[in-house]
Amino acid sequence: MSSTRLKGVGVSAGRASGPVVQVADPLPEPASTPAPTDPAAEAARIRPATEAVAARLTERAEAASGDAKAVLETTAAMAADPALISQAEKLVTGRSLPAARAVHEAAETFATALAAAGGYMAERVRDIRDVRDRVVAELLGVDPPGVPALTGPSVLVARDLAPADTAGLDPSKVLALVTEEGGPTSHTAILARALGIPAVVACTGLLSVGELRGLVVDGDTGVVEVPSGRVEVLAASSGRKAVWNGIGITADGSRVKVLANVGSAADARAAAEAGAEGVGLFRTEFCYLSATNEPTVEEQVKAYSAVLAPFPGKQVVVRTLDAGADKPLAFLAPEPEPNPALGVRGLRVAFTNNGVLDRQLEAIARAAEQTGAEVSVMAPMVATAEEADWFVKRARAAGLRRAGVMIEVPAAALTAREVFDAVDFVSLGTNDLAQYTFAADRQVGAVAALNDPWQPALLRLIALVGKAATEVGKPAGVCGEAAADPHLAAVLVGLGVTSLSMNASALTRVGAGLAEVHSDQCQLAAKAALAAHDPEHARLAARAALTPRRAH
Amino acid sequence: MSSTRLKGVGVSAGRASGPVVQVADPLPEPASTPAPTDPAAEAARIRPATEAVAARLTERAEAASGDAKAVLETTAAMAADPALISQAEKLVTGRSLPAARAVHEAAETFATALAAAGGYMAERVRDIRDVRDRVVAELLGVDPPGVPALTGPSVLVARDLAPADTAGLDPSKVLALVTEEGGPTSHTAILARALGIPAVVACTGLLSVGELRGLVVDGDTGVVEVPSGRVEVLAASSGRKAVWNGIGITADGSRVKVLANVGSAADARAAAEAGAEGVGLFRTEFCYLSATNEPTVEEQVKAYSAVLAPFPGKQVVVRTLDAGADKPLAFLAPEPEPNPALGVRGLRVAFTNNGVLDRQLEAIARAAEQTGAEVSVMAPMVATAEEADWFVKRARAAGLRRAGVMIEVPAAALTAREVFDAVDFVSLGTNDLAQYTFAADRQVGAVAALNDPWQPALLRLIALVGKAATEVGKPAGVCGEAAADPHLAAVLVGLGVTSLSMNASALTRVGAGLAEVHSDQCQLAAKAALAAHDPEHARLAARAALTPRRAH
Repeated sequence: MSSTRLKGVGVSAGRASGPVVQVADPLPEPASTPAPTDPAAEAARIRPATEAVAARLTERAEAASGDAKAVLETTAAMAADPALISQAEKLVTGRSLPAARAVHEAAETFATALAAAGGYMAERVRDIRDVRDRVVAELLGVDPPGVPALTGPSVLVARDLAPADTAGLDPSKVLALVTEEGGPTSHTAILARALGIPAVVACTGLLSVGELRGLVVDGDTGVVEVPSGRVEVLAASSGRKAVWNGIGITADGSRVKVLANVGSAADARAAAEAGAEGVGLFRTEFCYLSATNEPTVEEQVKAYSAVLAPFPGKQVVVRTLDAGADKPLAFLAPEPEPNPALGVRGLRVAFTNNGVLDRQLEAIARAAEQTGAEVSVMAPMVATAEEADWFVKRARAAGLRRAGVMIEVPAAALTAREVFDAVDFVSLGTNDLAQYTFAADRQVGAVAALNDPWQPALLRLIALVGKAATEVGKPAGVCGEAAADPHLAAVLVGLGVTSLSMNASALTRVGAGLAEVHSDQCQLAAKAALAAHDPEHARLAARAALTPRRAH
Repeated sequence: MSSTRLKGVGVSAGRASGPVVQVADPLPEPASTPAPTDPAAEAARIRPATEAVAARLTERAEAASGDAKAVLETTAAMAADPALISQAEKLVTGRSLPAARAVHEAAETFATALAAAGGYMAERVRDIRDVRDRVVAELLGVDPPGVPALTGPSVLVARDLAPADTAGLDPSKVLALVTEEGGPTSHTAILARALGIPAVVACTGLLSVGELRGLVVDGDTGVVEVPSGRVEVLAASSGRKAVWNGIGITADGSRVKVLANVGSAADARAAAEAGAEGVGLFRTEFCYLSATNEPTVEEQVKAYSAVLAPFPGKQVVVRTLDAGADKPLAFLAPEPEPNPALGVRGLRVAFTNNGVLDRQLEAIARAAEQTGAEVSVMAPMVATAEEADWFVKRARAAGLRRAGVMIEVPAAALTAREVFDAVDFVSLGTNDLAQYTFAADRQVGAVAALNDPWQPALLRLIALVGKAATEVGKPAGVCGEAAADPHLAAVLVGLGVTSLSMNASALTRVGAGLAEVHSDQCQLAAKAALAAHDPEHARLAARAALTPRRAH
């Protein structure tokens, strides 16, 4: 039995093997020529294509649950939208465009209108483009771009992955990622590290091997094997079987709480089952998003109690409403803004509308009392110590004893000492902090490489916060993507971070990783990463500092 | 002769006196009731009101020149837009709205459509709202909001000023600003300091005095006098007559180049006449904005040569094209983005389209040769040392010897040492740097207080860059608003900044201010401002450190 060996760049550690699912290349923009010889017949092809796409999406929606179900249902409805179909048909008959081109142009008109509506509607632009590509692929008779629905554990193979390709991906089914192109800061690499799964990029020759049934992937060495026979499904991130006893602690006994990020009662139950020591970030938006009016205090108490219930006697950090022009809520009547991420969002909304905040704080205090969870509150989008002070005073007035703020605006990190004077704790939101530090929109693929959580500039800001926390003896947590990467988690601990909060799926991986490293290794890794010239060197330097003792 | 004395908070130093121009309060949103008894007659009031507004704007346009003229002409055209008028009329006859309400709603529909179009069009939202308010004021028979056209040097008096009120303001005619409300970080205070004119805010009772003909304003003490008789026009910023010999130097002989920001040949001539030692920021966008296609290299050489011509043998720092979704140029085909300020702008456009950059660099090199100016080039929106290195290599390949980058993204400031390894110099763009550091859009009034250039968090980032500059012995300039405030300019010098670049109108003020302070005072002022808790304390602490020797 012979096998083919390929060599790429390992960008996310661990070994895995399993059957291959191939991600189709992005579709080129459909050509506007040649003009159809029979425009009426060409136009008539559009409706069946949209119906086929809508039917497949509906079928997937029926098999899905939760957010994924809702997204698929919305997308199916978009595909069947009679306005889209009739506009595309008109472009064929009126301008003699090929059907694929007509669908492309009609969808773009819709996308522009959605973008124009701003806020939540603008976020649907991605969905309408997804529908567009599926219908165009149907018309052209090619595979739709993006990741197909995964039916079981799979190794994903692609030329390269863009953020849009992986939207809606079920991470629990991805064993490993391998791409022919891409680099250590590509979306593929970032995604893999976020999910803690092995990945190899720049694997030249991968797509020329022929039909790939299975692969064996080593994310440490970058070696990818194409066995000639059947491939066993094996997921062994970092080559270790992750075991964790549910207490966040380093090998030498330093306590680092391992907490969960939750946004609903279902999340909270899953987090408790996965062994979370508590909740480091409870996003409260779910309580507002379904309502057209502000939910009453009673409604809020009920909703929050359901989330707090699995954590009696345990720490839960509740983040107050993070709304604004980027996540508009009708009852707050946000003004359209040229750059919603830089506008009136988070706590800034409360400065002119503090009733909403005060009612939420009241509801949180009552839910805490009912459930016996050890509740703290924190405010999003705080930029200065004055703002932190303003929030903490209101929280205390509502009877909440522990109050803190998110550090996700660079200015708050730069004045961490002053912010700590006002608060009991801080929590670093590394995703937004990176977005502002690099002036790079989290939603825009073209600037994604800048948003790498291993960027030394970001780590230096985090170090300022960790140093201030150590000096004043107050806790500094991390609740962004960075906390879910075991190596980076160790670096964060070395920078002075005292708790890590993540999606429930990452708890065991991070808890087990922490248990294997010593505090002095964390500090060495932090020092090495801080001094690095770029994210790739930071990653390698930290890995080197963390590896020796892990090896035995 | 008796006079009334009022006491407010002095937020921008200096004394001035002169005739008063009062800024009308913002209009409340017009009510949708009562329904007009004769809708047809009510609808018929709309056209004459729009015509009156358009006529006044056209008259002002004829008296203006340059950018102001273009803006006024556009606004006049908007006011006379038949579509706006007919839509408002329909709202009166169809929905029985009062005319003022109908104009308000019709204009909002237009504003939404403009916002939807994104980019340059979205920036016109402010103009359509300005037109809306003027027409509504005309219909209601009240003064239009905002600053009236100033016919001579005036003291502006207002309840408070919003950014929209002061758009299109002619700063050369403003002697001082006094507001009944507002605080040290209000738009009024920020504007006054940017213009270097005296200002007093929170001047309780100001608007209850009765008709104000003239005022004597002391921006140091916060005292405002209402003389009973005639008021002499006096502008004496900081109580001193500004004299400057055209060489930037501190009282103890430290050289700090005082340079101009220019964006056209006319700007360059004005800067040379005002005694600029050179140009610290030459914005090249003007060369592209008028063209639908990319200008040819020959066209660019001609345009740049006209700007360089007044500076033979002198330093001119040319910034390469800063375009993107926020300042869209058709030939670059930018994608619409949810947050253009965080998207593909500045140098980021060149990463996928380097032909435009290379042709610009070639044109700059040729213009430098033709005019004999000592030309350097720098790139906008650089976030990492790698990006800086990429740019510098291209600039050198084009034959340009000195190449640097703007530091306007926090990450670049946090990694200043690494960035300096790649470049010959850096220039701090404090306006954008503040916007990203505080995650606060420069265009959004509601977050304007965060964009105060005296914010300690911003000064700490600048200090990192100044320290790196001193260590490596390479120059670090400032070309944002901060450089035009004489006290802040001294603080910047104390932080390690080696040149200051500003609009020509500020050159003498800043040059004269520098000549009066010693380097050790600058360092003390910098230290005090860095340690301050907020912008107001930073300002006061710096002023205290700078005053002693200035006094004699």
